Amino acid sequence: MTQLFSAKKRILTLALFLTSCILYAQKTAWEEVAPGVWKAVVGSPDAFDLLKAADVPPRLEAIKRLDEGVFPFETSMIKADTVHRQTHLLFPLEKEEQIFGFGLNFKTVHQRGQILRLHVDHYGGRDNGRTHAPVPFYVSSKGYGVFINSARYIDVYAGSAARKDSENAPEARDRNTDRRWTSRPYSDAVEILVPSEGVEVYVFAGPTPLDAVKRYNLFTGGGPLPPRWGLGFTQRVHKLFTSDEVIEEAKAFEEKGYPLDFIGLEPGWQSKSYPNTFIWDKGRFPDPESFIKELKQMGVRVNLWVNPYVSPESPIYDKILPYTGTHTVWAGIVPDFTLQETKEIFWNQFEKQHLEIGVSGYKIDEVDGYDRYLWPDVAKFPSALSAEQIRQTYGLLVQKQSAALFKKRNQRTYGLIRASNAGGTSFPYVIYNDYYNHQDFITALINSSFSGVLWTPEARASKTAEEWLRRMQSVVFSPMAMINAWSSGTKPWSYPEVADEVKKMALLRMRMMPYWYSEFAKYHFMGIPPIRAMNLEEGFSMDQEQATISDDQADLEANPYAEAVRKEVKDQFMAGEFLLVAPMFTGQSSREVILPKGKWFDFYTGDYVGEGEIITVTPGLDKIPVFVKNGGIIPMTDPKLHAPKKGEKINLEIRHYGDQQGTYQLYDDDGETFDYEQGIFSWREIKVEKQKDGKFKGSISENEKNKPNNIDQITWRFMSK
Amino acid sequence: MTQLFSAKKRILTLALFLTSCILYAQKTAWEEVAPGVWKAVVGSPDAFDLLKAADVPPRLEAIKRLDEGVFPFETSMIKADTVHRQTHLLFPLEKEEQIFGFGLNFKTVHQRGQILRLHVDHYGGRDNGRTHAPVPFYVSSKGYGVFINSARYIDVYAGSAARKDSENAPEARDRNTDRRWTSRPYSDAVEILVPSEGVEVYVFAGPTPLDAVKRYNLFTGGGPLPPRWGLGFTQRVHKLFTSDEVIEEAKAFEEKGYPLDFIGLEPGWQSKSYPNTFIWDKGRFPDPESFIKELKQMGVRVNLWVNPYVSPESPIYDKILPYTGTHTVWAGIVPDFTLQETKEIFWNQFEKQHLEIGVSGYKIDEVDGYDRYLWPDVAKFPSALSAEQIRQTYGLLVQKQSAALFKKRNQRTYGLIRASNAGGTSFPYVIYNDYYNHQDFITALINSSFSGVLWTPEARASKTAEEWLRRMQSVVFSPMAMINAWSSGTKPWSYPEVADEVKKMALLRMRMMPYWYSEFAKYHFMGIPPIRAMNLEEGFSMDQEQATISDDQADLEANPYAEAVRKEVKDQFMAGEFLLVAPMFTGQSSREVILPKGKWFDFYTGDYVGEGEIITVTPGLDKIPVFVKNGGIIPMTDPKLHAPKKGEKINLEIRHYGDQQGTYQLYDDDGETFDYEQGIFSWREIKVEKQKDGKFKGSISENEKNKPNNIDQITWRFMSK
Repeated sequence: MTQLFSAKKRILTLALFLTSCILYAQKTAWEEVAPGVWKAVVGSPDAFDLLKAADVPPRLEAIKRLDEGVFPFETSMIKADTVHRQTHLLFPLEKEEQIFGFGLNFKTVHQRGQILRLHVDHYGGRDNGRTHAPVPFYVSSKGYGVFINSARYIDVYAGSAARKDSENAPEARDRNTDRRWTSRPYSDAVEILVPSEGVEVYVFAGPTPLDAVKRYNLFTGGGPLPPRWGLGFTQRVHKLFTSDEVIEEAKAFEEKGYPLDFIGLEPGWQSKSYPNTFIWDKGRFPDPESFIKELKQMGVRVNLWVNPYVSPESPIYDKILPYTGTHTVWAGIVPDFTLQETKEIFWNQFEKQHLEIGVSGYKIDEVDGYDRYLWPDVAKFPSALSAEQIRQTYGLLVQKQSAALFKKRNQRTYGLIRASNAGGTSFPYVIYNDYYNHQDFITALINSSFSGVLWTPEARASKTAEEWLRRMQSVVFSPMAMINAWSSGTKPWSYPEVADEVKKMALLRMRMMPYWYSEFAKYHFMGIPPIRAMNLEEGFSMDQEQATISDDQADLEANPYAEAVRKEVKDQFMAGEFLLVAPMFTGQSSREVILPKGKWFDFYTGDYVGEGEIITVTPGLDKIPVFVKNGGIIPMTDPKLHAPKKGEKINLEIRHYGDQQGTYQLYDDDGETFDYEQGIFSWREIKVEKQKDGKFKGSISENEKNKPNNIDQITWRFMSK
Repeated sequence: MTQLFSAKKRILTLALFLTSCILYAQKTAWEEVAPGVWKAVVGSPDAFDLLKAADVPPRLEAIKRLDEGVFPFETSMIKADTVHRQTHLLFPLEKEEQIFGFGLNFKTVHQRGQILRLHVDHYGGRDNGRTHAPVPFYVSSKGYGVFINSARYIDVYAGSAARKDSENAPEARDRNTDRRWTSRPYSDAVEILVPSEGVEVYVFAGPTPLDAVKRYNLFTGGGPLPPRWGLGFTQRVHKLFTSDEVIEEAKAFEEKGYPLDFIGLEPGWQSKSYPNTFIWDKGRFPDPESFIKELKQMGVRVNLWVNPYVSPESPIYDKILPYTGTHTVWAGIVPDFTLQETKEIFWNQFEKQHLEIGVSGYKIDEVDGYDRYLWPDVAKFPSALSAEQIRQTYGLLVQKQSAALFKKRNQRTYGLIRASNAGGTSFPYVIYNDYYNHQDFITALINSSFSGVLWTPEARASKTAEEWLRRMQSVVFSPMAMINAWSSGTKPWSYPEVADEVKKMALLRMRMMPYWYSEFAKYHFMGIPPIRAMNLEEGFSMDQEQATISDDQADLEANPYAEAVRKEVKDQFMAGEFLLVAPMFTGQSSREVILPKGKWFDFYTGDYVGEGEIITVTPGLDKIPVFVKNGGIIPMTDPKLHAPKKGEKINLEIRHYGDQQGTYQLYDDDGETFDYEQGIFSWREIKVEKQKDGKFKGSISENEKNKPNNIDQITWRFMSK
């Protein structure tokens, strides 16, 4: 047998191996770049990365207001080295520690034990790292976060591998006879491979997991503050609708009493799509400016579907051609958005054709995948960035650049995007996709809170009225209350049996606008995600259960390594500061709800339902189970079909729940512009205090001079007797 | 908005981009390294690659005997460049050209349009490149093959991407209204990304696709020549059987009249497994040497299950520890088989403990995946090869090194492996896995013929007797006729309703041994795979149909890009030179069979069934449809329970089918040793010629002096009237 390596070479490689082990053990140097945020530079990082692509400055003042944080590791326990032109990182894990994050996963919340290759793509049915926002940031139950700032495809072994020299190395067991044998021996570290000769790493302190999330969110710019109209209700019309048909649809909403704040036009508004011209089709939209005006007068704004792939028949084709990649997507050329020329040519068209006539936002499609649609990794781009780097940041770039168009006009926007990544926290876009599993949609909603992204479990079509109502109930408790009827043409009232219930849900959304709006303001100013996993809620303790199973218990034909079934909570979430939402799915009439510590109360009735326990609820078809924390204050308003305009005053119905006092920070501004960045906003404190006679009394702080005040009448409702 | 790149930098990158385009268009230099085999070296290839790992010299004399081949491309049409520390390759495709290969796929035969990341792993249910043998070799319907000799994870875009500057660039269509719009525009190239700064590429000439396959097979050493006993029947016993229970099982086979050539012991033969000690368990196997002898006397050999992960309780643990990777698998250490020390320590144990007491072969498990079991890509090995390279070649290394142990003893072996790769063609191992979809098992059998690997659709358990028989029927027409009862404990007779039929099938396997043995000899000496896809059969023409579907035809909720359904033949195959096998699956009573050009005849009856057409057959539960080419000659023998021993003479029943003359090369040697490498083998030509009176007459060439002749009586059967 031929020697694969000569003796000399073997001695040399063994020496190199030992040396690299020594280097591997070198400490990484951590620099505190913001309060409780540390950065390390390993090796020689790429010039281009996620934070550079997003290019949003940290909200340092807001970070300073967070609780103080301590570096969460013994620095010597973190390993980093560069070898084989790769960077290998290791972060220790403790025995009961749980980890979350790594982007928009649809089937798992707990990530410990997962192996992911973080790669922007349309989600494909497995939590393997291929997803719309494969954010390389994870959060620990111990209260810290770790972020890998790389625009490469990153391999993550999130507590799945075991090192022979670890002091926590798992014990070898005999599978023949030892019932404790497991196919997943103990792993004490998160190990990460970045295919690059260096990388920037960030660590975010707690003390709680939510604090780490807040710190990360603020460091990446804080959440977006949507316009009020963005938090209303939205319908996307069939892709081949004409302007007349769209107007008719908007009128139908009005006549039937369904709220509608913006309407989405699907690809057919363009003269050609897939690839796109980006100009209005003269046949279907003969006078787009009047069309948009007419809708605006009805209180309805317009959002345009696009994807960035340019048709040969687009007016910008010839000009932009030199600034595009070597490969096409649906025979359209692929703009390299990292170049100034590209930005000018591409977005200039959008300003002329869309913004100048009043378009309010975009739905930017297919910037994620699948691989068979998008450019291959062998594609080359004029900026000389790799196809991989363009893939990982394409969603970030188009969000940033399109949102900037509106900002130039002092206009807020709120739209949809199919890809994002770390750094995009502040971009006013919500992720959606073609998948449709309702349960998984809720899991994604939960996971969005760990990754600084927003997600909508859009409703499109349904097999039954029950399914339709259940989906509508979920969507109105999400960042964007949307029906996407691009193909199905469904309307909220398409299922007559539940038409009234659907209307009630849509109007509930509108009634809750003061609460949602304040919660988004907290996302922006304080980094608190408006939708939160239970695992970020204090007093929630549901450790991931793993029912170990031995060989003789398993069906080894179906499960040859006797893998245990994971148990985790992925079907209930926190909406805003006080609400716990537990969606119902088709076919369910009852479900369990896990209540964190403290008393909880029914949102609809104010009744006490339990505390720190699991309850079973049977809400009926017309209700989605929602519970309120003790002392919770929910500011609501009258049911209206459109969000308040700038300057429009609204009445408040301020609800209080439970047997405990409470406070609530109510946010106010003009709801449409960026004037809040100049300080033109207000926070008013709502207080509910218990009087000597046991009754509750509510108050709201005075409005400061020269601050917005859009509140007219206030009614107090003390829901719990 | 911050400029991502300064003006200077932009000019520079544009210049670099243009330069790289020029470089990209440079011709690659091709060197003819064997008749019809060209090699190019792009950039700076890795020192370690698949051919180096396999380390098997080409069979040059055999290649010379093939038809002459011409280089199948305009060299200028092939592109190769190194950029971003990667190698990008491009091979052109023509309009109707079909491609096959890229390893052991389970759901697709036609690869054009596929995107694969070739990565050794346990197959996971999708043809995405993650499979046991992700061989980077493809075959074209035009009659050539391309092989990328890299031990990296290779990204393949097999005719799925479109370049804007191609002269075949697809036309942009308007999805809004053009019914011809397709989500998969025309792609005119195979593009490949190798994550390395260079690579070796090989091109294999035809003229036919089968010639290209033969050339590749011979270049990588030719197929293995199994011992005759390897082509018999094998049973793997329950993992916790004792030696007494194994003997009992072998006796039961004998008493009930079921053939048995070798018995497989599963992990429990060891004192500890997962990880392994590699020594016999004293309780279950108190006297392994006598045990093996007793079985040998019954005509039954022993095969041992192993995986390479070493238990702390193994006698070799301390010695081998320095030659293992940083990470453990099931708490066992991972030998670096590229080092001489490893090989000596590890396999020395095998020789002492196993071979010296008469063990005949191994089943080497879990050298493939899944990721969550094996070492992560951040693992480091003492040879300083990357974890990726070790992963891609681990199966090759263990096959080569274990087979060499037997060769040292002038003993042939035949075993099982769960991972292989390009270069492993000659290794006497058959791939198997934990998957169990019968249809997909047959597709894998078909695909094995494009990739120089062997695959068995093993039978393990079944829900019904029908399923059991159907699986047994398939497995006896595959490279290894095996029941794997490691968990289920199933026996061939476990389903009483079909016990007789199962016996008939097992005995048919034994009766067909002269045919199978000659076909494997052709694999070894001529590179012709014993199991072949229909696409390698002359006269077979079934272009992949793709029913295009327009948006208005598709259900866009379920299929949002109106993707067409692929139609391809993946449920019938050629077995040896003359047989067409069309397996039946559970629940089927009829099926279609596509007959290539020429007349075809029923294997069981000799009846004419059709020619160059699709027929429908209803074979009944007891038959698997098998058809014989016109003029086909099938040498068979008496039904025996064990393969002939060395020197044992057998009777031949030589069958002829059809209305046409035929010839057949019958191979003979001692069936057990490597003496054939010293020329101790014979090829005898069997001829069936038509006499003047229309009747057929058979003859066999004289046996050459000093050549093996194990034939006793010959009977001729002219099956077709």
